[in-house]
Amino acid sequence: MTGSATSPELDRLIQLLARLPGLGPRSARRAVLHLIQKREQLLLPLADALRAAADRITLCTTCGNVDTTDPCTICADQRRDPMTICVVEQVSDLWALERAQATKGRYHVLGGTLSPLDGIGPDDLRIAELIARAEDPAVTEIILAVNATVEGQTTAHYVTDLLHEANVAVTRLAHGVPVGGELDYLDEGTLSAAMRSRTPF
Amino acid sequence: MTGSATSPELDRLIQLLARLPGLGPRSARRAVLHLIQKREQLLLPLADALRAAADRITLCTTCGNVDTTDPCTICADQRRDPMTICVVEQVSDLWALERAQATKGRYHVLGGTLSPLDGIGPDDLRIAELIARAEDPAVTEIILAVNATVEGQTTAHYVTDLLHEANVAVTRLAHGVPVGGELDYLDEGTLSAAMRSRTPF
Repeated sequence: MTGSATSPELDRLIQLLARLPGLGPRSARRAVLHLIQKREQLLLPLADALRAAADRITLCTTCGNVDTTDPCTICADQRRDPMTICVVEQVSDLWALERAQATKGRYHVLGGTLSPLDGIGPDDLRIAELIARAEDPAVTEIILAVNATVEGQTTAHYVTDLLHEANVAVTRLAHGVPVGGELDYLDEGTLSAAMRSRTPF
Repeated sequence: MTGSATSPELDRLIQLLARLPGLGPRSARRAVLHLIQKREQLLLPLADALRAAADRITLCTTCGNVDTTDPCTICADQRRDPMTICVVEQVSDLWALERAQATKGRYHVLGGTLSPLDGIGPDDLRIAELIARAEDPAVTEIILAVNATVEGQTTAHYVTDLLHEANVAVTRLAHGVPVGGELDYLDEGTLSAAMRSRTPF
C-alpha cells in the first residue's frame, strides 16, 4: 500500500520513486501526478534520460568518477594539472569541488570512509589505487578533501600514513569560518580552528 | 550550472529530476548518484516504469482519474455504489480517500478550484461533466470532498448552486478534530466547528 494509486503501473512507479533519497511515499505520489500532467515535457524526457544514463554511464577506473567515458573527462583532460590529486570521499564531493572550480588538478574518489563498525575496511575503499597513483613521479601533491567528520579525518590519517613512502606533499582543506557564515551560529571547534589559522588582513 | 556533473548525460538527468516537486538541484544530484549506484535495482526499473506510464496512462473521461483504462478501474467496478459521487479537486485527493477506503461510491475529479485571480473559471474545471453525471436518476448523493480552503469552499458553493436542479442530496465532509490531533495545536476555526458538531459519547 505504499503507492495506492488505482493502477499497478502507477503504484510501481510511485514505489520506485519513493526509494530515491529525499523522496518518500507522499512526495513520490505528488511527483508521479506531476509527471503525468507533464507527459511530453518531463515524463518522456526523464524516461529517455534514465535509459541513456543506464546505457552509457560507467566508473572511471583511474579516479572513480562517474562519466560516459573511461578514463573520465577530467582524467583525460590534458589541461588539468597532473601533479595534484585531490582525494574525496564520494563523487558528490568531486562535483561540489568542480562547481567551485576549487582545483585544477585531478581527483581520486575513495568511495566512502573507514568505518570498522560498519565493516568498511581499507580494502573496501579505493586506497590501494590512490597509493599506486601517488607513486607516479609526476605527482607532487595529494590534497585530502575529505569531510571534517571523525570518519573522514580517521581515513585521512590512515591514507597519510600509507603515503609516507611516496615522495609527495600531503595537504588538507583549511578549517575556518564559512564565507557568509555568522560567528554566533558556528560551533566552538570551527571558531578555535579559524582563530588558530588566522591570516594577515 | 544546475547539474554540474562532469558529463552532459548526467547534467540533463539532474536537471529533469530537479523539476519534480519536492526535489531541487542538490537532492536531484544525490538522487542521480543513488540511481547510478543501484543501476540494476533502481535505475533500469525506474526508466522502464516511466516508459510504461507514458505509454499506458490515460485520463478517465467519466471521472478524470488517471489509469491505464478508460473508464478507469473505479468507474468500471460494478461493486462500487453507483448512487454516490464523491467530488474531489485533484487525483491526489482521490488516492487519499481510496487509501482511507472512505467511500464505496465513485469519484469526480474537478481538476482544481475556481480562482478568478489565476484566470481559472468554471469552464477550466470538469464542472459541466459533474452536472451531467448528477442528472442520471441512479445518482442520489454528491459528496463535496474539496479542501477546507477558501478556494475549495467557494468552488463547493458554486457547484451546489448548479446542482439545485438535479434531484440529489449534496453533502460535504465533516469539520472537526483530526484523529490523533491535540487541541492545543488546532486553530480556533476547527475547534469551533468541532464544538458545534459535537456528538453523543
